[in-house]
Amino acid sequence: VETPISLAPLLEARSIAIIGASADPLKIGGRPIEYLRRFGFTGRVVPVNPNRDNVQGLTCYRSLVDTEPVDLAIIAAPAAAAVDAVHECLAARTKGIVLFTAGFAEVNEEGRSVQSELARAASEAGSTLLGPNCLGTINAHNRVVATFTTALEAGALPAGQFSYCGQSGALGAYWLDKVVAAGLGVSKWITTGNEAQVTLADGLAYLAQDHETRLIGIYIEDVKRPEVFAAAAEAARAAGKTIVAIKAGRSHAGQLAVAAHTGAQAGDDARYQALLDDCRITRVASLTEMIDAGRLILGEVPPTAAKRLGVVTVSGGAGVLICDAAHDAGLVVPELPPQVRAALDGILPTFVRRQNPIDVTGAVVSNTAMLDRIIAALAESDACDAIVLFFGLMNSIKDDIVAAVRNARLSGKPIVLIWMGSSQASRAAIEHMGIPVFDEIPSAINALAAVSRSGGRRGP
Amino acid sequence: VETPISLAPLLEARSIAIIGASADPLKIGGRPIEYLRRFGFTGRVVPVNPNRDNVQGLTCYRSLVDTEPVDLAIIAAPAAAAVDAVHECLAARTKGIVLFTAGFAEVNEEGRSVQSELARAASEAGSTLLGPNCLGTINAHNRVVATFTTALEAGALPAGQFSYCGQSGALGAYWLDKVVAAGLGVSKWITTGNEAQVTLADGLAYLAQDHETRLIGIYIEDVKRPEVFAAAAEAARAAGKTIVAIKAGRSHAGQLAVAAHTGAQAGDDARYQALLDDCRITRVASLTEMIDAGRLILGEVPPTAAKRLGVVTVSGGAGVLICDAAHDAGLVVPELPPQVRAALDGILPTFVRRQNPIDVTGAVVSNTAMLDRIIAALAESDACDAIVLFFGLMNSIKDDIVAAVRNARLSGKPIVLIWMGSSQASRAAIEHMGIPVFDEIPSAINALAAVSRSGGRRGP
Repeated sequence: VETPISLAPLLEARSIAIIGASADPLKIGGRPIEYLRRFGFTGRVVPVNPNRDNVQGLTCYRSLVDTEPVDLAIIAAPAAAAVDAVHECLAARTKGIVLFTAGFAEVNEEGRSVQSELARAASEAGSTLLGPNCLGTINAHNRVVATFTTALEAGALPAGQFSYCGQSGALGAYWLDKVVAAGLGVSKWITTGNEAQVTLADGLAYLAQDHETRLIGIYIEDVKRPEVFAAAAEAARAAGKTIVAIKAGRSHAGQLAVAAHTGAQAGDDARYQALLDDCRITRVASLTEMIDAGRLILGEVPPTAAKRLGVVTVSGGAGVLICDAAHDAGLVVPELPPQVRAALDGILPTFVRRQNPIDVTGAVVSNTAMLDRIIAALAESDACDAIVLFFGLMNSIKDDIVAAVRNARLSGKPIVLIWMGSSQASRAAIEHMGIPVFDEIPSAINALAAVSRSGGRRGP
Repeated sequence: VETPISLAPLLEARSIAIIGASADPLKIGGRPIEYLRRFGFTGRVVPVNPNRDNVQGLTCYRSLVDTEPVDLAIIAAPAAAAVDAVHECLAARTKGIVLFTAGFAEVNEEGRSVQSELARAASEAGSTLLGPNCLGTINAHNRVVATFTTALEAGALPAGQFSYCGQSGALGAYWLDKVVAAGLGVSKWITTGNEAQVTLADGLAYLAQDHETRLIGIYIEDVKRPEVFAAAAEAARAAGKTIVAIKAGRSHAGQLAVAAHTGAQAGDDARYQALLDDCRITRVASLTEMIDAGRLILGEVPPTAAKRLGVVTVSGGAGVLICDAAHDAGLVVPELPPQVRAALDGILPTFVRRQNPIDVTGAVVSNTAMLDRIIAALAESDACDAIVLFFGLMNSIKDDIVAAVRNARLSGKPIVLIWMGSSQASRAAIEHMGIPVFDEIPSAINALAAVSRSGGRRGP
């Protein structure tokens, strides 16, 4: 297998130049400078712009060759100047180059040939070139923020274990926004755009060996080097990491749109599905599904390899819908073994059948203690791999529900919790324990199924 | 076709007794009294309880026969007393009876035969019996709130055009919570429980002729009188109403859970799908999907019969995912006709391809006026039935986006708007125009497809 191109020059840079630096922190050439400083990058930041002496309070250089070599150069120049800027970087022996500029392979064949030439030059010089037509990269741990994404405009950038790699920068931006909103932390963020040199496969290879990454979300329009990709996926898996993917361009119209977007060929979907299956990569249909799966995987006890669900519900109707959603997602709601049914005899009201889903009915309101006992009976049983809890509203016993979830967590069995119309405080209390709170049945069950499909092997 | 049982005695009652009335407004026999008064019911409220003279400030009677006849009696008595209470109502010539009490057909055959006997007696007396094992009914317009659902504990009850009918009271409660949270208004709310006498079909027949209802969400475990159901669905359709359904019990486990829940037989799903198809009822998989479809149907220009989508996106990747979601949902993203492509020549930057989805790229930030012109070109074209707009973040041009949506609305073409990471203020401004704001691609496109499937005929 071909050696992947290293993303270390991008993600581990200690000195960063911005070519086309702007004094305006809202412009493409201004944002990375503002972000690097606001998010606390401690290395050197070097604005480059022949028309300025000072940019955002920093000394500005006419050219990259006028200052000490930097690890990474971000090119925010317009298309006409971008090609020269890349050659300027290579002349200055810059090891990492992020090329934001659009207008290459996604426009026409001339653009494709120009970007190929840039990639060839970068490879010859031993440099790593990200883009063109990309939104750059982020390392939330060392605060290398080499992007102009507006997702960071107002928001925070909490460091964590969830990384993104994808051709689309905009979807990466929405991913960032949603990940932070979900209370998860970010590790690395890589947008590859037109992939003149660095491709998804290289990004994945970096993330596979990155100790700060435990979960990888990828957005795929095409895979240009499938062998590198497959080897990287295998390495990630061997390191106990989970990969969740959106593969775009399933439809004919979507394939045309891919070509217009990054100049890629989305190709036959069945072939891609086979590649993802070979790599044991779980496919999801949206960012929300990706992040929902992430909430479970990064939670207290990830339900990897959970196929058989023990269900406890306060609503019979919800229990039915959980069965249907589980069936659709390839999961099972098995019959309860005799021991569990016997245990339930001592717990449930006489009028409730001893079957899975276990419908505690409104009777739970006057006897919340039954929750602990039912959950314990399921937790002790080998008949289920995960416990699905369904609550709805029930403000009057909300603290008892939170307490029951806290106890359930101690059982060590994966818990998937759906609570429609929960209070914000209850939700926060439960998520603080590392158990995500879902508000809808199919989204929770689909997230569980995605995590289950991602397979059982975990950790080194 | 058999005549449906009238729900008028329930939903149009001017006097309401509560048998098993409680002084505690949080108890099952206390909540309906508290709700009737808090939500402004202007008719007579009559607590009945042999052990009390006064309940929540109202004179309490020993028995229903001790006071003037009432239109509706709510029975909140425990199972042992419930059967006598029904006979007490029939003796007092009460035309409407809501029986909350559980413990009948869902428990065993004896319970089934007891509830059948009650239904027979009610029918002989010409009375309407809802339940047993139900959460009652609501008419949000005349404030008949004959339920103990906790969904009304804290919340408001805005009157509107969206009605619910379903066997599950709990799912009805979550529906209420979600409908109000979505900013929609409620018309009628009917939970049928075990359906000893009144079934879904009767509820649907009432809603079909109800002038305050325009959209009907139903939750189905079984359909006991398919001919009445089909006739009611046809009447609703003829009156320009849309029906959106969740059919529960697709899976084997789900079918077992249905039997435990309401004693019903969920039956062969293919047969139910055929019934729904015959009735032109759109099926959805969750309450969220039901309410998302409702947001479009009750919006400014419902995209009924919209198959071909004109897509405008700020993200190429999102455009691809919209194509894929449309394909999955049976919708089409067609090629643009020459006139539209010619119009785009004068609007789009040279590097953007003139194809559908129309990717305005980041260029829109410095030229928001292009949005109006592109949307106008699509609105004037016969090549698409609805316009899908995708935005993400873009806080710096949020007011221009709101303005563009306002202009798009004037075109008269249905608009489906997805804005990931929008500000709350922008979202509120757009929803105030009657255009729902979606935050995710598949949910928006699936809602559009559900509304499209519901067919074109609308309102007299």
